[in-house]
Amino acid sequence: MKGIRPYRIDGNRKIQLLDQRYLPHEEKWLTIETWEDMADAIKDMIIRGAPAIGIAAAFGYYLGNLQMKTRKNNDGGVFMENVRNILASTRPTAVNLFWALERMSLIDLHDTDALWQEAVAISEEDEKSCRDMGKHGSAEIKGKNLRVLTHCNAGALATGGWGTALGVIRQLHTEGRLQMVYSDETRPRQQGSRLTVWELAQDGVPVTMISDTMAGHMMKNNLIDLVITGADRIASNGDSANKIGTYQIAVLAKRNDIPFYIAAPVSTVDFSIKSGEEIIIEERDESEVLYIDGKIQTAENVHARNFGFDVTEAELISGIITEKGVLKFPYGESISRLAV
Amino acid sequence: MKGIRPYRIDGNRKIQLLDQRYLPHEEKWLTIETWEDMADAIKDMIIRGAPAIGIAAAFGYYLGNLQMKTRKNNDGGVFMENVRNILASTRPTAVNLFWALERMSLIDLHDTDALWQEAVAISEEDEKSCRDMGKHGSAEIKGKNLRVLTHCNAGALATGGWGTALGVIRQLHTEGRLQMVYSDETRPRQQGSRLTVWELAQDGVPVTMISDTMAGHMMKNNLIDLVITGADRIASNGDSANKIGTYQIAVLAKRNDIPFYIAAPVSTVDFSIKSGEEIIIEERDESEVLYIDGKIQTAENVHARNFGFDVTEAELISGIITEKGVLKFPYGESISRLAV
Repeated sequence: MKGIRPYRIDGNRKIQLLDQRYLPHEEKWLTIETWEDMADAIKDMIIRGAPAIGIAAAFGYYLGNLQMKTRKNNDGGVFMENVRNILASTRPTAVNLFWALERMSLIDLHDTDALWQEAVAISEEDEKSCRDMGKHGSAEIKGKNLRVLTHCNAGALATGGWGTALGVIRQLHTEGRLQMVYSDETRPRQQGSRLTVWELAQDGVPVTMISDTMAGHMMKNNLIDLVITGADRIASNGDSANKIGTYQIAVLAKRNDIPFYIAAPVSTVDFSIKSGEEIIIEERDESEVLYIDGKIQTAENVHARNFGFDVTEAELISGIITEKGVLKFPYGESISRLAV
Repeated sequence: MKGIRPYRIDGNRKIQLLDQRYLPHEEKWLTIETWEDMADAIKDMIIRGAPAIGIAAAFGYYLGNLQMKTRKNNDGGVFMENVRNILASTRPTAVNLFWALERMSLIDLHDTDALWQEAVAISEEDEKSCRDMGKHGSAEIKGKNLRVLTHCNAGALATGGWGTALGVIRQLHTEGRLQMVYSDETRPRQQGSRLTVWELAQDGVPVTMISDTMAGHMMKNNLIDLVITGADRIASNGDSANKIGTYQIAVLAKRNDIPFYIAAPVSTVDFSIKSGEEIIIEERDESEVLYIDGKIQTAENVHARNFGFDVTEAELISGIITEKGVLKFPYGESISRLAV
């Protein structure tokens, strides 16, 4: 496999992001030189996916620290607090963002080398977590010739590399147990057809695209053996927020007796909230629903709703695959043990 | 309201179709002069929607009859049998197609005037049926400030006028009981965003577009009061085939205790089949999923599945609204009474 990653760094600490808005048509790398540009890159979804957003924020914090040091009246703490707050506000749902910034803020503000090392560590640990998730997931999942449905992109592009849901899928493929990945288009932003299909095809993993309307029919007609998605935030009881449309798939899987798994690192767990009801759901600009590639898809002067995420209740989730093992319903106790 | 119809005819028996592939951007009318062109128009979805396909086939049969009469070696019956068979094979799911051709074939082959009158009658009766459905539906549905979800286009554009599901919605609007219609985009062909939104906006009915991924989240968050869709074929037990994605919505409505209605004329019922398992599901060309407006939406050289319809089990349907009244689960007996 090619080792796809959403970012690259070099010995001179140059930070580049793969502009995911141009995939699969173009591989365009952007050099990010300021924390403000990193904040915009997260907001504009140049980089997306809960773990990758955490990594991007960590590098953004490092860039902020470089900028802090060039200032005449060096107010250190206040400057970095502002950097942290603004980076944290770029996307409201992914908890990894807050987790990564929390980790960065524990490092001495005047030790730029240590800040760089910490950001690198966050990204490398994330890829290792994904590989561990892959192994735990493949041990949990039985059978071969598996036909797996996934939604959105929980792949190498959404993480430090390898992927969460797609990490499990890559592991199944490596073991020769995967027949086909079905990738939902994932409207409105089409991260399924544009990112997941591209990423898997790059690595020779068999993948077929479907429209978001087809998942239920395929489950009912025995064309899907299991579902794996990522998560953007997991509450203490196992309720999980993920890309809009995930909840629907989980309900359909339940009705059709198909296992529905979530794969996510422990950093996705928000121990501070009891249930999914406390998760703020981002509503994004209606233009994402109304337009595709700059072309309006409906009548002029009509509005759209654009919910970015939804919450899947814990009882619909067959297992939460983490780097520390697979959690099972009811999740309360096993999740609280992760908090230590 | 504007009295939108998918076809127009004049005193010279000129037949025109509104080319629905160009909506909502352009209102383009095509004159159809041969039965072969009518067959292509159905196949290429210039006209679509189960009742409208029946009407188009009836006019196609009439055009075939005109062509039959210009032939030297007039083999009448054989020629018209071929016309009928080919028109019937244009789309496999909508039963109204076969029903309309059956009705036409009962008319004397040599009475062209009677054939024209029959085709006109089929279309006019269809609009009247829709208006009756609207009244039965609005009597069945309780409450006001209703927020109604619909899928695909079961509107004036899919019928002889007024619409089945949208007929009920128009009636609710006329009575001042409608707050908002939410229209699913309905990928892959986007009949929701392109046809339903356009049609309702034209008539001043409040409508908001959503992506197909959002219906479940909105139901769970109390933003939808009921669902109404059309149907392409209804089995004797009430199982109903409709546009791909309908089954998912019905499952989600059930889980969230939201009424899910189907509105369809009696001509949609296929009395010859016992259950939905006997319904052939059309699988269309993968390009409809892979491309939007001629532009590929995913990686090159990747395949897609493209199921055109799915089947919703009778037990998920709160009521089937017909021009003869509202049927209730279990449907077996009430449907068999319609056969008379």
